[in-house]
Amino acid sequence: MTMKEKNFSVRTDLAIEATEIILSAEKAKEREEKTESERGGHELDGIEIKEESINDNIKLTKVKITNKNGEKSMGKPMGSYITLESPAMKENDTDTHEEIIKVLSENIAELTKLKKKSLILIVGLGNRNITPDALGPLVISKILVTRHITESLPESIDHDVRAVSAISPGVMGITGIETGEIIKGICESIKPDLIIAVDALAARKTERINATIQMSDTGISPGSGVGNKRMALNKDTLGIPVIAIGVPTVVDAATLINDTMDKVLNEMSLKAKKGGEFYKMLQTLDKDEKYNLIYEILTPCNGNMFVTPKEVDAVVKRLANIISNGINIALHPAISKEDINRYFN
Amino acid sequence: MTMKEKNFSVRTDLAIEATEIILSAEKAKEREEKTESERGGHELDGIEIKEESINDNIKLTKVKITNKNGEKSMGKPMGSYITLESPAMKENDTDTHEEIIKVLSENIAELTKLKKKSLILIVGLGNRNITPDALGPLVISKILVTRHITESLPESIDHDVRAVSAISPGVMGITGIETGEIIKGICESIKPDLIIAVDALAARKTERINATIQMSDTGISPGSGVGNKRMALNKDTLGIPVIAIGVPTVVDAATLINDTMDKVLNEMSLKAKKGGEFYKMLQTLDKDEKYNLIYEILTPCNGNMFVTPKEVDAVVKRLANIISNGINIALHPAISKEDINRYFN
Amino acid sequence: MTMKEKNFSVRTDLAIEATEIILSAEKAKEREEKTESERGGHELDGIEIKEESINDNIKLTKVKITNKNGEKSMGKPMGSYITLESPAMKENDTDTHEEIIKVLSENIAELTKLKKKSLILIVGLGNRNITPDALGPLVISKILVTRHITESLPESIDHDVRAVSAISPGVMGITGIETGEIIKGICESIKPDLIIAVDALAARKTERINATIQMSDTGISPGSGVGNKRMALNKDTLGIPVIAIGVPTVVDAATLINDTMDKVLNEMSLKAKKGGEFYKMLQTLDKDEKYNLIYEILTPCNGNMFVTPKEVDAVVKRLANIISNGINIALHPAISKEDINRYFN
Amino acid sequence: MTMKEKNFSVRTDLAIEATEIILSAEKAKEREEKTESERGGHELDGIEIKEESINDNIKLTKVKITNKNGEKSMGKPMGSYITLESPAMKENDTDTHEEIIKVLSENIAELTKLKKKSLILIVGLGNRNITPDALGPLVISKILVTRHITESLPESIDHDVRAVSAISPGVMGITGIETGEIIKGICESIKPDLIIAVDALAARKTERINATIQMSDTGISPGSGVGNKRMALNKDTLGIPVIAIGVPTVVDAATLINDTMDKVLNEMSLKAKKGGEFYKMLQTLDKDEKYNLIYEILTPCNGNMFVTPKEVDAVVKRLANIISNGINIALHPAISKEDINRYFN
Repeated sequence: MTMKEKNFSVRTDLAIEATEIILSAEKAKEREEKTESERGGHELDGIEIKEESINDNIKLTKVKITNKNGEKSMGKPMGSYITLESPAMKENDTDTHEEIIKVLSENIAELTKLKKKSLILIVGLGNRNITPDALGPLVISKILVTRHITESLPESIDHDVRAVSAISPGVMGITGIETGEIIKGICESIKPDLIIAVDALAARKTERINATIQMSDTGISPGSGVGNKRMALNKDTLGIPVIAIGVPTVVDAATLINDTMDKVLNEMSLKAKKGGEFYKMLQTLDKDEKYNLIYEILTPCNGNMFVTPKEVDAVVKRLANIISNGINIALHPAISKEDINRYFN
Repeated sequence: MTMKEKNFSVRTDLAIEATEIILSAEKAKEREEKTESERGGHELDGIEIKEESINDNIKLTKVKITNKNGEKSMGKPMGSYITLESPAMKENDTDTHEEIIKVLSENIAELTKLKKKSLILIVGLGNRNITPDALGPLVISKILVTRHITESLPESIDHDVRAVSAISPGVMGITGIETGEIIKGICESIKPDLIIAVDALAARKTERINATIQMSDTGISPGSGVGNKRMALNKDTLGIPVIAIGVPTVVDAATLINDTMDKVLNEMSLKAKKGGEFYKMLQTLDKDEKYNLIYEILTPCNGNMFVTPKEVDAVVKRLANIISNGINIALHPAISKEDINRYFN
Repeated sequence: MTMKEKNFSVRTDLAIEATEIILSAEKAKEREEKTESERGGHELDGIEIKEESINDNIKLTKVKITNKNGEKSMGKPMGSYITLESPAMKENDTDTHEEIIKVLSENIAELTKLKKKSLILIVGLGNRNITPDALGPLVISKILVTRHITESLPESIDHDVRAVSAISPGVMGITGIETGEIIKGICESIKPDLIIAVDALAARKTERINATIQMSDTGISPGSGVGNKRMALNKDTLGIPVIAIGVPTVVDAATLINDTMDKVLNEMSLKAKKGGEFYKMLQTLDKDEKYNLIYEILTPCNGNMFVTPKEVDAVVKRLANIISNGINIALHPAISKEDINRYFN
Repeated sequence: MTMKEKNFSVRTDLAIEATEIILSAEKAKEREEKTESERGGHELDGIEIKEESINDNIKLTKVKITNKNGEKSMGKPMGSYITLESPAMKENDTDTHEEIIKVLSENIAELTKLKKKSLILIVGLGNRNITPDALGPLVISKILVTRHITESLPESIDHDVRAVSAISPGVMGITGIETGEIIKGICESIKPDLIIAVDALAARKTERINATIQMSDTGISPGSGVGNKRMALNKDTLGIPVIAIGVPTVVDAATLINDTMDKVLNEMSLKAKKGGEFYKMLQTLDKDEKYNLIYEILTPCNGNMFVTPKEVDAVVKRLANIISNGINIALHPAISKEDINRYFN
């Protein structure tokens, strides 16, 4: 998660938030031109969107960016983005968690398109000492790793168990090394066929916090930290496909204030009927200028502030449990929950 | 810390923020009436304020509420409020920490007015499982407790070592018992002469977070949780004096947005010269109405969001170290740092 | 858990180990006198023993001490002792955990004999900062507390939900207060009908570590710490029944060496056919003398050493989960797992 | 730390324990042949030993293995082994900690022989989820890393600050990858000039636990886990020098019982004057046979047990503080403690 990132005003880690922005602009146009007849299956140049309600608790949105136009309007690389939404994932609701794990594992399997004899490396990004950023490292501690067994004792293990390895490289502030450099080195050493990278993300809306899982086949860029040298984890940089799984666990405080202010002013201007000069001035204000004003008011001397629910310590553990189980089942479909316990020490 | 508290709009845990609000109103009047001649020693009915710069790093503000008028305008009970401000306390700056500990221990000693033969109970309020609320429990784990030694082996201990005991009762959501009930029971059992209660607080300004220690001799009210039955910890309820020590570790998100929005609109209206109708409308808006609007936009379904710096895990440990040392030295002035180590196991 | 206890040679926290010692002596006599015809239902003066195999994974042993003779030979007060044994409880085996929780909750219900309208106080003994001693505090964090809801919002809760409260008082080395004093004070304040106290225990055998749950209706004595003033938690001291639930998580190193040496020498003497003078000397050696010799060799300067498996961090979390669920289900039989989640935040 | 290692009977992680065994054999010979005239400066073929008392609290022993004979008798590769002993390092004694840090940093500097423009990689071995094995990962979290700053902002940093990077790769049971493979990959990626590897070790004597720091220039072998494929971290495998720093935090329970039993029997045989047949039998017993007998009695079904003091959680944090400071000062001699704070965020 890029917690030190200064300018969140035009970006979001979540494809679903990018599509919302595009769709709301699109719908504004639609309203003038025609009736809204296509809900649930929008078509835009270079962007395919498909929404699906799995059940009352779980909603799935699949976005495909198919060409350069789509890349540009979404601000994200071409590929598939699957978003699973369920407020229950932050609650202590083990039954819905089971359902989420099932949907999650099916969609991970769909994105990974694995052969039987693959070696997979799971990478847990983020800083384990900062609670809302510890998701990746926590997931790694619950991954069923099998590579060392498949290599040294191949006869003691089922043929359908894939070779899985896992690592939490730590963040650049602690290692002094770019995450991309560490992963590149390990890839050269063990030659995996696929990487699955797990990270905590930033959302723009508080209701998304700890309630959304995003999967994509386009890789991921770990937080920059110092300088702008940061190296993405993707097929271009590592030579193998990189599946990214992320959950927004915070909202940047300046972004949140910016967005909330817009909504408040909107509501107020509706009440006031006619906004008048001042409201017009607010609307013509350059977006970055306003964001920077808020940022400076908020952080007179020190680093970024973020917004998080108070239960974040417990919730991040629940999320790590859901995601690690989703990955374990996607990678080892032939083995049962009992078997997983057997392989764990 | 009252994290579930819905309406922060008119209240703050910090006396210094309350005085700022009063003083800014007062100064507005002053500007019209006379020159500002008394900086550093304001006098208001029922409120005495004294500011002191210990050195470049540490500022001390002493506020005394002396009568009912002061109580009313401050929204706080009569008594002494000492605020120590130093941005260095959140940094990894052990030298300034030593200075802060010294100032802190002197002021705790001044507030407590202890006799030699006192029994003191230190109470760590808050939830140890929620990082920014764990300050109280963390302090308790570093308190030099001596009561069990002074009772069972009085000859093995210096005569100047006071009898100190300490407890983290846990929050009502985990115990099912009001903190006040637990402390009242323990007081009846061990009969202390004084209570020092440590808690994490909420501030209104992000720059105060983890940079301010408030001490007072007026007791404290632990977070309400459910219902409005909550029982304050003070001389009225417990029969003995209660010194409160608190550090703001979070800002309520809705409060922060509210305050930031006011500042942004102010800046903008200055630029716009003439705010016009819309700005006037914003200013006449009922304060609670605006706060509630923000609160609803922010929290569509779930509990309060709070704002905190990302390093909160490390910073709360530093704060616990500073406060526990300040208390240890205030209560055991005759013993050296070496002795403290000797009594610790 | 009494980790500082010096002399473990004649004592054990576990009733089942006490019965083993008695039975092995008894059997030695039996072998001479008659055939072993009564396995599974021994009868000794003042001691009733009943063994039960719930299934392949879980064994239950119920010991009743019925008179003063039983008290003397067992070294434990009159009352019921139920021991649940299952090596699976330390493994990551959630299916067997479900079974253990069921058996545990039934036996807790049997021991507590609760009326519908009871107020129960769960007490988690031990030091949360020492992994194998953190069982009690960890259980408390997972208890479904309802007292504050039943009191303030009685209409919002089912009539069959009992009022439950919970506390981890901390150990005397951290609080300076005897655990008994704290609990006595809280009892006077909230007047519970029953206490359930959870603690980590010491075993004599490594195979019992983390594989045994002992329940009894005779109360418990928290670790002494300093001096011999320690106050038991039982009906005599608190005026209400105290159910104790404990799991052995360590073996004292000196005890273990003592016991293992006996076994090794035994094995060797069998091989040597005729032990000779030296072996006879070993056998006539005073037991306390030998234990003290080992203790001195082991601990030249510092405190007790204990023996524990390396996975203790993970295992204690599993045990806390099993015991808290066992208690939750025993106390709230009318509510389902789903409801438990609903009441939890 | 090789916690799963079965046979400890002939090996120890500590050079100082190996020399003790050799010296005690040597001294037995000496006693017969000549007077003990050379205490403090022994000479054996291929082994040089130099003892030094820094002060009352700290003892230093330097062992050099200089040829194949030394390698064989010590069971360790040629090179320098420096052992710092101080019982105070496990206590809460910050003054002696400062002294230990000074001696430690001087000896690390001596072993590393660094040039000004070096890139150093610190590797924290061990499992952060197992308290006594978490020393390496804890040290990493306190290392002053500078590589990312020296690379991206070379002008913002003093010329005398070396480029330091740090990583905790995790253990094979969690990663599925041999530690050696991970480090080899990272070395190929960032090309360090030197590695410093920190690990928790096993001792044979309880009084050494948490009271001894061993440094050597011969590299280290991380715990094997599964199979015997484990790859050492040293100049042969990685192409660059590897300094190892280790602290014994546990004793294997079977080893401890074995050793203690020997001592007990020895004491007893002295008392018995004439040991007789049984004692002779015990002495002629094959050492491995006896160890295996103890091992089987101790662990009927599950993994190794280890012996550790109960305060291990607090002590390991103190040790991590001492070692990380020792490394920081050795690598950045030009910068003061204040500067270290400045570079830390």
